Amino acid sequence: MAELSKVPAAPVRFETHPSRYKHIKLSFDGAIARLALDVVEDKPLVEGYVLKQNSYDLGVDVELADAVNRMRFEHPEVRAVLVVSNQPKVFCAGANIYMLGSSTHAFKVNFCKFTNETRLALEQACTESGQHYIAALNGVAAGGGYELALACEHIVLCDDGSSAVSFPETPLLAVLPGTGGLTRLVDKRKVRRDLADVFSTLAEGIRGKRAKQWGLVDEVVPKSKFDEAVLLRAKAFVDATPERKGPGVTLPALEPRRWEEGGRIGVDYRYVSLVAHHEDRLAELTILGPEGDPPGSAEALRKQGAEAWHLRMARELDDALCDLRFNHPQVGLVVLRTRGDGQAVRRFDDALLSLAESDWFAKEIVLMVKRTFKRLDLTAKSFFAILDPGSCFAGTLFELAIAADRSFMKSGEEQAFVALSKMSFGPLPMSTGLTRLETRFLATPSKVAELEKETDFMDPEQALEHGLVTFTPDDIDWDDEIRIALEERASLSPDALTGMEANLRFAGPETMESKIFARLSAWQNWIFQRPNAVGDKGALKVYGKGEKAAFDLNRV
Amino acid sequence: MAELSKVPAAPVRFETHPSRYKHIKLSFDGAIARLALDVVEDKPLVEGYVLKQNSYDLGVDVELADAVNRMRFEHPEVRAVLVVSNQPKVFCAGANIYMLGSSTHAFKVNFCKFTNETRLALEQACTESGQHYIAALNGVAAGGGYELALACEHIVLCDDGSSAVSFPETPLLAVLPGTGGLTRLVDKRKVRRDLADVFSTLAEGIRGKRAKQWGLVDEVVPKSKFDEAVLLRAKAFVDATPERKGPGVTLPALEPRRWEEGGRIGVDYRYVSLVAHHEDRLAELTILGPEGDPPGSAEALRKQGAEAWHLRMARELDDALCDLRFNHPQVGLVVLRTRGDGQAVRRFDDALLSLAESDWFAKEIVLMVKRTFKRLDLTAKSFFAILDPGSCFAGTLFELAIAADRSFMKSGEEQAFVALSKMSFGPLPMSTGLTRLETRFLATPSKVAELEKETDFMDPEQALEHGLVTFTPDDIDWDDEIRIALEERASLSPDALTGMEANLRFAGPETMESKIFARLSAWQNWIFQRPNAVGDKGALKVYGKGEKAAFDLNRV
Repeated sequence: MAELSKVPAAPVRFETHPSRYKHIKLSFDGAIARLALDVVEDKPLVEGYVLKQNSYDLGVDVELADAVNRMRFEHPEVRAVLVVSNQPKVFCAGANIYMLGSSTHAFKVNFCKFTNETRLALEQACTESGQHYIAALNGVAAGGGYELALACEHIVLCDDGSSAVSFPETPLLAVLPGTGGLTRLVDKRKVRRDLADVFSTLAEGIRGKRAKQWGLVDEVVPKSKFDEAVLLRAKAFVDATPERKGPGVTLPALEPRRWEEGGRIGVDYRYVSLVAHHEDRLAELTILGPEGDPPGSAEALRKQGAEAWHLRMARELDDALCDLRFNHPQVGLVVLRTRGDGQAVRRFDDALLSLAESDWFAKEIVLMVKRTFKRLDLTAKSFFAILDPGSCFAGTLFELAIAADRSFMKSGEEQAFVALSKMSFGPLPMSTGLTRLETRFLATPSKVAELEKETDFMDPEQALEHGLVTFTPDDIDWDDEIRIALEERASLSPDALTGMEANLRFAGPETMESKIFARLSAWQNWIFQRPNAVGDKGALKVYGKGEKAAFDLNRV
Repeated sequence: MAELSKVPAAPVRFETHPSRYKHIKLSFDGAIARLALDVVEDKPLVEGYVLKQNSYDLGVDVELADAVNRMRFEHPEVRAVLVVSNQPKVFCAGANIYMLGSSTHAFKVNFCKFTNETRLALEQACTESGQHYIAALNGVAAGGGYELALACEHIVLCDDGSSAVSFPETPLLAVLPGTGGLTRLVDKRKVRRDLADVFSTLAEGIRGKRAKQWGLVDEVVPKSKFDEAVLLRAKAFVDATPERKGPGVTLPALEPRRWEEGGRIGVDYRYVSLVAHHEDRLAELTILGPEGDPPGSAEALRKQGAEAWHLRMARELDDALCDLRFNHPQVGLVVLRTRGDGQAVRRFDDALLSLAESDWFAKEIVLMVKRTFKRLDLTAKSFFAILDPGSCFAGTLFELAIAADRSFMKSGEEQAFVALSKMSFGPLPMSTGLTRLETRFLATPSKVAELEKETDFMDPEQALEHGLVTFTPDDIDWDDEIRIALEERASLSPDALTGMEANLRFAGPETMESKIFARLSAWQNWIFQRPNAVGDKGALKVYGKGEKAAFDLNRV
């Protein structure tokens, strides 16, 4: 295997469409969709490895993420999704090992984060959108393949003497099943920890009835009855799930304008723009508020479709965040700005939430905003929010101000204003299950109830008094204070900041979801640096070369 | 600064006594104790660095751990502990940077784990034993110094224009305040995350009223009134805390017999023995059950004092676990065995728990067992429990079987038995707050209630049926099955196992305590491997050399 260039040569793009999928085939039969993995060996994202055995790389996962997201909007009639393999004897062999072995540390870490987010989105399609994913394992589901199954609501394993579920990561590769695997094993499926220990060290995995007995799968079905059993299960999910009235809403390509000029790399979407200054290690992310009046009915919202402000803004922001993570490693700090009419944001918030009570499309939009803001929480860059005159940090967009690591609000002659909306108090929780306001006021929970009554716009003095912003420099200090803060941040170790932010952002309780990004991912990232995995003789490096890994046998 | 040998040349010993302390001075005035840090610069644990500014190394922390633990047993009259510095202008400068910079990765990780356990024990002395720790900051409390204060129940900061609290780790050293610092900041003190972000990047820290406003300290007091205010606060704690009737119970030295023979290194305590086979990367840890009748009254228990079985066993096991972590890095797998009468264990359990309802000493013993078993949960070695004929895995000792990563119970002609006791159902929770049985049966919580009625001893068939053991090989398979399991475990990457076990052992909820060892420590361990911290030009390496750290400025 040739050593690859350290990062994909071309920027990674996160938009795709079923018509351009290379590896996933989507088909529909009424309320039942079929998501078939049929990974094309010789179409990896980056030249240099072969996607054997339905293994995946980021290119495959971008398609999966698109499919899961798109189905929620474009196919509301779908209530069960069969996740199957179109290749014989293998369901999915997980993340491609040669890809992992040849990737940079940063790419591995970001790849795993993205795939984790995709699995969680799939899981939330089950719980939030009534699209129930069923993994139909007609072959070996190894590593990330079984992790994909674990994210599904129901796992059917074919009892044909060879189909199996397995976590070969630890025994064969000296890494963890880090795409939620270990966490879902004991926290979601609640597999007994001693059995989980045995399973996770058994390269060949577990087949047949034992897989069911240990709680690794939900059903074990003989080959002759496999297709029938899977379909029956899908129909049962369909029957138990309320129908969502179509038609679906098409998600067109965002078609942003990309540009480069004088050391700056920019991308302009409709409501979002991102400008990266690599030399300054800084990016500016600016979001425009909505204009005019919000749609007053489900029909009006449907007419706007993908152009509805919340949806378009969230899709653009989501794309920009993925762009930031993968294509701008040089950027350590993101300056968040908004422009527009805060009152309009609040009107749009109220209208959307009101419709979301009964309209699936409005509800899906809220969920998309929620997922996107979680992606921001989990992005390993510092975020500073700049609340200046002309900004519209209100409601949905105020979430960005308190998702940021700190905020600066302009006081003095020309000052900024902020406001909350119903969006601030529940619809957009973090991965911990708390809202950002609840997280902010862990020490004084009554503050949140108090703020719920604060329906006016707040000036800097009031916002500071309420604890909603960090600093409120006036005309004299504004420029210097922000300049110094940006320079100081840029001088610190990126790694220490990543670890610091991952700790300070997620105060309070943990959920299965947050544990995946904390306990599991942090340990995996540690292991991804250990010579036993990634050294010249590390297991991840020598896999498939016919060499045996050489381990430092000391325990840390 | 000279490069040090990679590990302390001599084994680290964890037993000490106030009469042998070098760095800590304990004094008592009725119900108020004074724990003064007065670190002797030229008495580090390992030659090669100087303990300036009341900074600490493992040697200092072993004294602190001893003091906190000993006070709970030997000084029940103490209800408030003033943590002070005997050095002018500085409370404590935290973990010694030159020590950290010159230590191996494994030593750093284990050092931080031990210091975290010590801070948690201090915290639990407040909540569980009515010994309230007050940090009296008469100078700078930086990094680990402030983290020590954070573990105290109340922090008083002197408002003298120079005393400050600070976390210079990220800005100066490119690492985290990893001794619980970041977690306690936002989870215990619930400091607002944006303020925590500012504080954690500000090398010089925060002084005076602002420290109080931000919630970093509880009181800010002018220098002239400092001593008086601290004493008043101590008296308030004393007045609010029920008295514990003395006299205390002296904890004598354990005086184990240490030996080496044919590649084996052993230590024999009274109830615990540890034999390490470095070549096989294996250790055998054997625990003897109690003999005779348990003490039937608080007086009888007091008469046994430190020789009481539970207490002596726990102290020995605790010492052996620290020994394993620091002095036997070669060991990856620990075989847990017990010998004795399971019925006696249960009688001793019942007697102790019955006394613990009203007797502080009995209660302290239970708490000591709890702490020790938590230390086992957090030890980065694999544990396999071997339940063979002659073993006594009952009650307290059955916890070891389910703390283990897996268990083998001998069936057939000569078989083993197991049993639960009241100890299984509450007094010995893990750091997640769940009992080990609750963790084991997350999927079927009713099982725990069902088992509470199961008061008989169980044979292998019953134990397997109840899900209490992993495997029950019979006479034919026993030797081979265990031998193969041990060999297989020894062949796996120690790092991957550490990460895997850290994930599988702690299913379910997280607490502040468990977050320290998951979210915080795992990230810190990651950072402890990053070149920005520990590379030749890493901040931790060049600190104090007059060189500037050189960072890879890319974000991961």
